[in-house]
Amino acid sequence: MVHLADDERLDFLPLNHLKIIQSQTVFSFSMDAVLLAQFAYLPLKKGKVMDLCTGNGAVALMLSTRTQAAIEGIEIQERLYDMAVRSVRLNHKEKQITIHHQDLREAQARFELGSYDVVTCNPPYLPAHTGQTNVNEHYAIARHELYCTLEDILSVSAALLKPKGRLALVHRPSRLADILTLLRRYRLEPKRMCLVHPKADKPANMVLVEGMKDGQPDLRLLPPLIAYTADNEYTPQMKRIYFGEETLL
Amino acid sequence: MVHLADDERLDFLPLNHLKIIQSQTVFSFSMDAVLLAQFAYLPLKKGKVMDLCTGNGAVALMLSTRTQAAIEGIEIQERLYDMAVRSVRLNHKEKQITIHHQDLREAQARFELGSYDVVTCNPPYLPAHTGQTNVNEHYAIARHELYCTLEDILSVSAALLKPKGRLALVHRPSRLADILTLLRRYRLEPKRMCLVHPKADKPANMVLVEGMKDGQPDLRLLPPLIAYTADNEYTPQMKRIYFGEETLL
Repeated sequence: MVHLADDERLDFLPLNHLKIIQSQTVFSFSMDAVLLAQFAYLPLKKGKVMDLCTGNGAVALMLSTRTQAAIEGIEIQERLYDMAVRSVRLNHKEKQITIHHQDLREAQARFELGSYDVVTCNPPYLPAHTGQTNVNEHYAIARHELYCTLEDILSVSAALLKPKGRLALVHRPSRLADILTLLRRYRLEPKRMCLVHPKADKPANMVLVEGMKDGQPDLRLLPPLIAYTADNEYTPQMKRIYFGEETLL
Repeated sequence: MVHLADDERLDFLPLNHLKIIQSQTVFSFSMDAVLLAQFAYLPLKKGKVMDLCTGNGAVALMLSTRTQAAIEGIEIQERLYDMAVRSVRLNHKEKQITIHHQDLREAQARFELGSYDVVTCNPPYLPAHTGQTNVNEHYAIARHELYCTLEDILSVSAALLKPKGRLALVHRPSRLADILTLLRRYRLEPKRMCLVHPKADKPANMVLVEGMKDGQPDLRLLPPLIAYTADNEYTPQMKRIYFGEETLL
């Protein structure tokens, strides 16, 4: 049995009927996590995958439906770490997924460097002290770069990845120049990118980027991904992604 | 009267009924030039605009329909320079547009630095010695970075632009990491970007980027621009752009 706290609820993801413990008190996963999980390149049978800023473990759990590789997640907030551990148990994924209560800025001392095939991350999007301040500390940490910056994430990813290993990142398009510049600085060559538009005639509000450790320069852009139709329904493609019927490779 | 050589033809652009001298022997302007001309920010009444790699002057001529500012163009190939000069005369734009026969790598010695409001460029897309080699030297120079690299262009643009002046560039998405990294290196902060997809379900094959001299970081992504419908017709948006009824600002 897995215990649920009073403010927690059990969400069901259509993607392979995963169950995920969520709470309005802390940050819930959203479309970003689903898209990241279907965008990341994954080894099929074996290998090592690390999900940074794993939160309640949504990305790690979704990745586990696409690969038999060992998956680890790192989360700095104890409350979210604890939810992730319980969600892993709920889905009987303890053998495949290990969640660590860990500050990623100290990850280089704890994990084997140059050993991971894939790193994924759905990081805080906003620089510290910008935009709306969140009343709730959990939300503030998930949204603002309070405990880790984009550069921290890329630095750790570069250290963890094997040569030719790949980082998959979801972020805001307004940070694209930062992202591509920093990826290059950490020798994570941008190889694949997908812009996500809420509607076909709207600016992109999300970007998925893949960087390859010591890869050759050549960026491939995927077709634009449109989330909603003019009638505010999910587009057919978005539905297929939610049901795990389509990846963004 | 303007003389046309045997291999030359007169093309009419729907955009304000411009006439442009083209020749199959040298490089003809194409959709890239039209999109660049409608993407560039322009001062309305006065100011200075420079079009680098102006070729047969198509971009300079199209820009002249949107602004009364003084427009200059630089072209290294004498044959194209000569066509551009004649096209300017054909359209009675001699007072507004001046074409220079000039190697842009030497432009910093000839033009007033820090004085331009806007620089535009539809440069060669391919690094030297990559991809298909062009039999015809004119095509090779227009397509490959034989006489100027992306870095040359950004370096000259940064030197010519006023503080907060803007560079508008059209290029291949595969070079996006180069473009954004180099823009930052030359303090041309990426501010606006539009990806152009041949069809709605196809990867982008063109990117329009605006960099602002000493601008603040914050990149705005435009809605994706789709060139053709599933039936291989121009999309309504593309038609409006061709007729000068819509800009990409």
